[in-house]
Amino acid sequence: MVLDLAAMRDSLNRRHSSVKDMTNRIRIGILGYGNLGRGAIRAIEATPDLTLQGIYTRRNPLTLSEETGLPFFGLDALDVTQVELDVLLLCGGSATDLPVQGPEYARRFVTVDSFDTHAKIPEYFAQVDEAARAGDRLAIISTGWDPGLFSLHRLLGEAILPKGETYTFWGRGLSQGHSDALRRIPGVKAGVQYTIPNEASLEAIRAGSRPNLGPAERHQRECFVVPDEGADLDALREAIVTLPHYFADYDTTVHFIDAETLAREHAAMPHGGVVIRSATTSDATNQVVEFRLALDSNPEFTGAVLVAYARAAHRLYQRGERGALTPFDVAPGLLSPRSPDELRRDLL
Amino acid sequence: MVLDLAAMRDSLNRRHSSVKDMTNRIRIGILGYGNLGRGAIRAIEATPDLTLQGIYTRRNPLTLSEETGLPFFGLDALDVTQVELDVLLLCGGSATDLPVQGPEYARRFVTVDSFDTHAKIPEYFAQVDEAARAGDRLAIISTGWDPGLFSLHRLLGEAILPKGETYTFWGRGLSQGHSDALRRIPGVKAGVQYTIPNEASLEAIRAGSRPNLGPAERHQRECFVVPDEGADLDALREAIVTLPHYFADYDTTVHFIDAETLAREHAAMPHGGVVIRSATTSDATNQVVEFRLALDSNPEFTGAVLVAYARAAHRLYQRGERGALTPFDVAPGLLSPRSPDELRRDLL
Repeated sequence: MVLDLAAMRDSLNRRHSSVKDMTNRIRIGILGYGNLGRGAIRAIEATPDLTLQGIYTRRNPLTLSEETGLPFFGLDALDVTQVELDVLLLCGGSATDLPVQGPEYARRFVTVDSFDTHAKIPEYFAQVDEAARAGDRLAIISTGWDPGLFSLHRLLGEAILPKGETYTFWGRGLSQGHSDALRRIPGVKAGVQYTIPNEASLEAIRAGSRPNLGPAERHQRECFVVPDEGADLDALREAIVTLPHYFADYDTTVHFIDAETLAREHAAMPHGGVVIRSATTSDATNQVVEFRLALDSNPEFTGAVLVAYARAAHRLYQRGERGALTPFDVAPGLLSPRSPDELRRDLL
Repeated sequence: MVLDLAAMRDSLNRRHSSVKDMTNRIRIGILGYGNLGRGAIRAIEATPDLTLQGIYTRRNPLTLSEETGLPFFGLDALDVTQVELDVLLLCGGSATDLPVQGPEYARRFVTVDSFDTHAKIPEYFAQVDEAARAGDRLAIISTGWDPGLFSLHRLLGEAILPKGETYTFWGRGLSQGHSDALRRIPGVKAGVQYTIPNEASLEAIRAGSRPNLGPAERHQRECFVVPDEGADLDALREAIVTLPHYFADYDTTVHFIDAETLAREHAAMPHGGVVIRSATTSDATNQVVEFRLALDSNPEFTGAVLVAYARAAHRLYQRGERGALTPFDVAPGLLSPRSPDELRRDLL
């Protein structure tokens, strides 16, 4: 595809500033074109009632537009006052992007994000809430699946069954944090780490027991490692399995593979996990509630959750809600494109 | 326990009409003292923020109060204008009780019920909505687990993952409708029927396939039957497994047992099931979302769900919401006794 880039820029800018969607679809912007942004684009394409208005990126928008046929813009396009967006999805990372972008954009847009640094959620919520209220906007933070759908199930389990224990297991899935730690070990050229729930513990809980679980009883860790050339594999394995915090406390398995195998078999980003509540409503009456995700693609699923919450954010904003919200504050019906009548008739 | 019944009646009536709960607990009334009502009582006892104000029954309230130490009243006590209830739980059945009681009591109380005749939900919703609006009250209908929590998961799966299929499996659990049908067969003295999900179908869906399932591929049926004395067991078995609608279309197993075994091993009311969404977010990228209940006591769990929705109903009423709602309309955070700050800090 060969395009006149100057003409394309003009065309995109015209579209961006003036086109209204005549079908009243909800106009979505995406900030950040990483894995999550790509997942959100696919999710928007699967909906009847949302339309992708623009993807905002630090990279070269003209090149990306040419390569993909999608409407890319620079970040400065979000500074134009007449930007026609109903909801802006913040698809950056929680470590450095969202702490800045969350409050910044919540002041000017209805936003949805997947902020996932659990310990900093109260602080982040307060900052986004203040910004959104100052700008008369609404923001839904920490959507996705954990935090997000898993949080909903921790809440549901406890609210309905007060006398019990809640367990969260992650995996089988690719852990970014543990893969990063693995790759920082000297002698590791490349590699990935999968987190695996301890099936024996899970089965015991499903059967009604409520064990106190240490780290090794919750998760196992499986590493696929491309070693540096000439590395002492026994020493490297030992360095990996004894890495404090990340691997030392777990049953950790290390597989040495070559770069081609890594590229061929470990490029996908599967994930998932289980939230399970085991509780009692009277003597010896056990009640077990389990929510389980098995995801071939973590970013595509997370993107799909963000997109459903974008629909809810737009509706809540139109009803006059303002400030920061979380999935705890969003009635489930608002996530669906269908009308309340239809939902009651077909799904209740 | 020997009580002066006249004094007790006076005492209860005084309590009923005048006592305010000084801790600001939400005051709950329960209409109907069957299995569900009993489950709701246990659930209220397990909460920090709700208090049982009265149980309203067609049976003799004085006898029940004496037997249990709980505050029973006749139905006429609900006609007294100064009844101090924040929420009335309607714990009757969907066939005959709720179609009358739902609209009747929604006119005068904030109500929560578990209306579960799926096909009649739109009609019931409209009637309760009209009554609640006429009386300036709020009602949450069709809580429990199906409809209720299972409905929420049918909605979540479809809203987040539009390209896929949703399957609901029930069991292993005691089915009242099928047990009733079983007991109406001539030659059956007593018996129960358990609905069992077809594990092979469930495993196929978990693995990412999306089959079209006939009844037999969804559920199996297991009957425990006490036959009439002298019954022809082969003929009776044949009459059971060929009963149209209830058993003929399924793999149905019949076990003949004696009355003592029935009483000893089949008095509990376990139930549960699975809602599973199998979907695709891009080519060959499967995403599977599963919600599963394994309940030792169906009525105790259902009662616990009603009680959590009673908390939400009270809060929504205090915020000015009116009319009929369903679980689709209730933000999850409203179900928890904890504050939004705490929920964000501890569960998000």
